[in-house]
Amino acid sequence: MTARATRTVGIIGGMGPEATCLLFQRIIRATPARRDQDHLHVIINCDPSVPDRTAALVAGGESPVASLVASAQLLERAGAHLLAMPCVTAHAFVEPVRRAVGVPLVSLVEETARAVNEQCGHARCVGLLATDGTVRSGVFGCLGERRQLIVPEAAQQAEVMAAIYGPRGVKTVGPNAEASRRMAAVAADLVRRGAEAIVAGCTEVPLALAAGDVAMPLMDTLDVLARAVVREATGACGGRTL
Amino acid sequence: MTARATRTVGIIGGMGPEATCLLFQRIIRATPARRDQDHLHVIINCDPSVPDRTAALVAGGESPVASLVASAQLLERAGAHLLAMPCVTAHAFVEPVRRAVGVPLVSLVEETARAVNEQCGHARCVGLLATDGTVRSGVFGCLGERRQLIVPEAAQQAEVMAAIYGPRGVKTVGPNAEASRRMAAVAADLVRRGAEAIVAGCTEVPLALAAGDVAMPLMDTLDVLARAVVREATGACGGRTL
Repeated sequence: MTARATRTVGIIGGMGPEATCLLFQRIIRATPARRDQDHLHVIINCDPSVPDRTAALVAGGESPVASLVASAQLLERAGAHLLAMPCVTAHAFVEPVRRAVGVPLVSLVEETARAVNEQCGHARCVGLLATDGTVRSGVFGCLGERRQLIVPEAAQQAEVMAAIYGPRGVKTVGPNAEASRRMAAVAADLVRRGAEAIVAGCTEVPLALAAGDVAMPLMDTLDVLARAVVREATGACGGRTL
Repeated sequence: MTARATRTVGIIGGMGPEATCLLFQRIIRATPARRDQDHLHVIINCDPSVPDRTAALVAGGESPVASLVASAQLLERAGAHLLAMPCVTAHAFVEPVRRAVGVPLVSLVEETARAVNEQCGHARCVGLLATDGTVRSGVFGCLGERRQLIVPEAAQQAEVMAAIYGPRGVKTVGPNAEASRRMAAVAADLVRRGAEAIVAGCTEVPLALAAGDVAMPLMDTLDVLARAVVREATGACGGRTL
């Protein structure tokens, strides 16, 4: 093996497996590479037994913290120099994970807030498509610091959950037209209510919604995370200390 | 975490990252699951610094064995109960990897030979699309035990390599129309020469060739491996001892 100037990426995955796979694919495609050996070293722990994050936040379900910490520590032991979690809702539990390891965790939420400021700085109102757990936990509160943050009304929020967890949801049967139709209708309602940008605030949302399905800019949090991971792993950020 | 009756899968990946990601996706889709927690625990070590397998086999390049063994041992330490390598050419080195770990490695080559016998048992002649290293190493020799095995003629074999490694190859720039056109032309030539089934004998071939692009059955070795991994990890094979 030749010495590599890049950092090894550890992915705390499995929430769900599809979103983990999609982040992996986007990291590969976001990496400047002409041959296998130019790609990043990525270690993925796709452990779907992590207790449901939404259930823990809204229904008193089992906490996912012990599982997330175990996954982060497994990745650190295996050689990861930086970590990422392709699950927005899990970011409600990010601080105990960060404290349990000696390597940095690139936060999907912090990177999304940064990306909204950089790419949609003009927007006075941003709409959020996310799970009940994410919405109620306020994990995306930082998005509302510089502008109004709106979320779907109750009936519409139920549609978001159906498109993710329902019998025809993307977690249940994978990407499909019905889930896409439901998610697009909720996005359109947020735009009617004034949203000038939409944040796909659950890693499963982009599995049901493409940029062309919404009239306003769609911030894809998995894309944002993939680009941040490549930036941090390749040192393309310049002198920033991890 | 709840007790799980399935085995944890370890993937010796990075050869290349795209094929690793594709195997991951196919394992997810081949798993009977209705929610995140039903999926398999999969640990992926995508280490693209493994020395080029074809260069080692045909040009006296650095051996990949030390890297492959290190990757297998990392996965075993992390908790994998069975291993898989989404790279056909690497299977020329499978025995030293197997000897270095205490868990079984599900061989893509052995599983492909089994799948050809099960699904194309009638075929008297099978055509192989693979890298120079795989062709010359005879790693797929077992395919010729019950039937004739043919490979592309020299100029056509150069086209296969161009579609994988060339400036517009799938390892260089990802899936694209030019690579697909080249690979389909070589497959058509194998069919003209008598092949009644085509084995996509490099994990990058399916990135350039779909079943509809060939007039005869196309055995996708990544699909075969994904189904074998799910079978072994879920114990769906019945009493077979791993």
